[in-house]
Amino acid sequence: MADPSPLLLRDDADGIATLTLNRPDQRNALSTGLMTALEQALDAIAEDSAVKVVILAGTGPAFSAGHDLREVRADRRREAYEALFAQCSRTMLKIVRLPKPVIARVHGVATAAGCQLVASCDLAVASEAARFATPGVNIGLFCSTPMVALSRNVARKHAMEMLLTGDLIPAERAREIGLVNRVVPAAELEAATRELARQIASKSPLTLAIGKEAFYAQAELDLEAAYAYASEVMTRNMLARDAGEGIDAFLEKRAPQWTGE
Amino acid sequence: MADPSPLLLRDDADGIATLTLNRPDQRNALSTGLMTALEQALDAIAEDSAVKVVILAGTGPAFSAGHDLREVRADRRREAYEALFAQCSRTMLKIVRLPKPVIARVHGVATAAGCQLVASCDLAVASEAARFATPGVNIGLFCSTPMVALSRNVARKHAMEMLLTGDLIPAERAREIGLVNRVVPAAELEAATRELARQIASKSPLTLAIGKEAFYAQAELDLEAAYAYASEVMTRNMLARDAGEGIDAFLEKRAPQWTGE
Amino acid sequence: MADPSPLLLRDDADGIATLTLNRPDQRNALSTGLMTALEQALDAIAEDSAVKVVILAGTGPAFSAGHDLREVRADRRREAYEALFAQCSRTMLKIVRLPKPVIARVHGVATAAGCQLVASCDLAVASEAARFATPGVNIGLFCSTPMVALSRNVARKHAMEMLLTGDLIPAERAREIGLVNRVVPAAELEAATRELARQIASKSPLTLAIGKEAFYAQAELDLEAAYAYASEVMTRNMLARDAGEGIDAFLEKRAPQWTGE
Repeated sequence: MADPSPLLLRDDADGIATLTLNRPDQRNALSTGLMTALEQALDAIAEDSAVKVVILAGTGPAFSAGHDLREVRADRRREAYEALFAQCSRTMLKIVRLPKPVIARVHGVATAAGCQLVASCDLAVASEAARFATPGVNIGLFCSTPMVALSRNVARKHAMEMLLTGDLIPAERAREIGLVNRVVPAAELEAATRELARQIASKSPLTLAIGKEAFYAQAELDLEAAYAYASEVMTRNMLARDAGEGIDAFLEKRAPQWTGE
Repeated sequence: MADPSPLLLRDDADGIATLTLNRPDQRNALSTGLMTALEQALDAIAEDSAVKVVILAGTGPAFSAGHDLREVRADRRREAYEALFAQCSRTMLKIVRLPKPVIARVHGVATAAGCQLVASCDLAVASEAARFATPGVNIGLFCSTPMVALSRNVARKHAMEMLLTGDLIPAERAREIGLVNRVVPAAELEAATRELARQIASKSPLTLAIGKEAFYAQAELDLEAAYAYASEVMTRNMLARDAGEGIDAFLEKRAPQWTGE
Repeated sequence: MADPSPLLLRDDADGIATLTLNRPDQRNALSTGLMTALEQALDAIAEDSAVKVVILAGTGPAFSAGHDLREVRADRRREAYEALFAQCSRTMLKIVRLPKPVIARVHGVATAAGCQLVASCDLAVASEAARFATPGVNIGLFCSTPMVALSRNVARKHAMEMLLTGDLIPAERAREIGLVNRVVPAAELEAATRELARQIASKSPLTLAIGKEAFYAQAELDLEAAYAYASEVMTRNMLARDAGEGIDAFLEKRAPQWTGE
């Protein structure tokens, strides 16, 4: 008999894979099991040419409350902590390195590593009911790994205020500082996120993969090196069939036919 | 007989050189010819002590639609693409490295490499009618070189939304995310840009050159190295005649007389 | 007899040390003497376990007008300038490296190195009456060291506009662009800043020290290196007594007892 409530749900439709954190009673705390499920799903999606875009969502009242603190305290050896934080960082990096755009769909509270998940996604759509915090400072455990993602999304003093106070910020404030792209009424969250995903899924998957990889790569280079790298990426992109087809379709005023090549 | 409609116009007044992209029927697409004209004009201005500030503008309905797609498709060899993107990157770097401030005056649509031009300028003033996009993803050619400039102007998720959707954003949104400094009614664009240029042109050109170079150089250093570098720049700046004159004039409550030395 | 008006005042209460620049008639210009006093106070506070949070404030009409220009012009040798800018940079780095959060309380004008002080603090609360500028360009001395801090707080075009125009911006604009966290009516500035300081002072000082150091360290690493570093920091943090106590208190729904270990 299959597990009636897996830790992570996957639902595919129209080239969009929706991954849903499914530990509602634990506010989708990122247990080792849930992170492993997420890693496996991302690995599978990386190889799945039917998936163009990923939506990351959660069941229950919260988007994700971060690490599972009971699990964290169950094994207090250095090796256990090292393995835990290494896995969490690896999971976040898998989102960044997935050759397909990932959109966070945030319906409720996203805190600590849950906030990090949102920051690690390429895009984020939030409900007006969503709230965000890095509250580790309140329990003596500074949100040091979440801040890696957070501080690459928002300005320095905004990140510091969240990290030093641990306060929850409303969705609209998260939008103002750049942590999420769009805020919509709760009732419209699913449709708004799907519409954004559909729009992006209509593009050439090869082009999306080239562009996403290049975005994060060039961000870490100095200006001259970034241009040298990006120019090479543009040349490679132009030599792919989809770019020729896209430009010809544009010049001929017709819809392009993507082959993903 | 002189060419009645050169690709790039140059008009100098009051220490301000206005460079105007002049392919109105091609929406100021950056053909090889236009980029070459822009490179030559920037090289000339770099050596021209009469020019204190540059305004970059465009004729016709658009500011610039980016690369000239017909030209892009005319020569499909790798070498042609490499040369094209290398030239484009070189042109953008010339704006950044010009030892005089460059202000984009954006009256209409600025897309792809046209948006990159705006992002590459030190400052940008936009009309309420201006709009911005990096729509390469729609034609299979991700805006990988434009994103080098874009992602150094705006927050990560804002850049990603423009790059992945290809959507046009209005001038006011561009202002909110940091892509342009000011938005004014269309009828006031020319005067507002000129006023900003005049204000900056009243400063010591030597001081502007030192400061602009230092700004981009320190941005690529870590904090301690940036301070070591900037402290040396400040010392060099203080030993120049214009700094002594400026401070003395300030202390004596009189207007400074810049010599550019 | 003690000096009746020291250059820097220190007042400690409730784990909060308030350092107040006290050259009101010179608009708290950062003379060598005042910077030395600030360096010494920061060194003392670094070793003082009774201090959890620092507030940096000023007496008189201005927060700080930057360098003391009369002093700058008194000794015009290269060595004097090198020493001056090296000391200023060292002072700013001491704020960043202090293992306790520093909050700027900005009641009036903060210009040049005074604006840099605000940018160098971890957080900043401003009165509605505060204004900010990097006006060195007006006196021939570009704000090259202030821009190191400024450009790490705000977006590139926002920094460039302040640096190239030298214009004063109001507190609300400083908040919009990320230079300060909060703006409050002048009459509420002291209470609002103290409330923020108290909130942060209630956290584990060990956790704050770990987090602040990690924040600035990871900001200078690439993403993968930042995660490797932050994961190690999280492990070290988890092995400290305060984290275990904090998590246990959270799980047991009681207030934590910090030992700073």
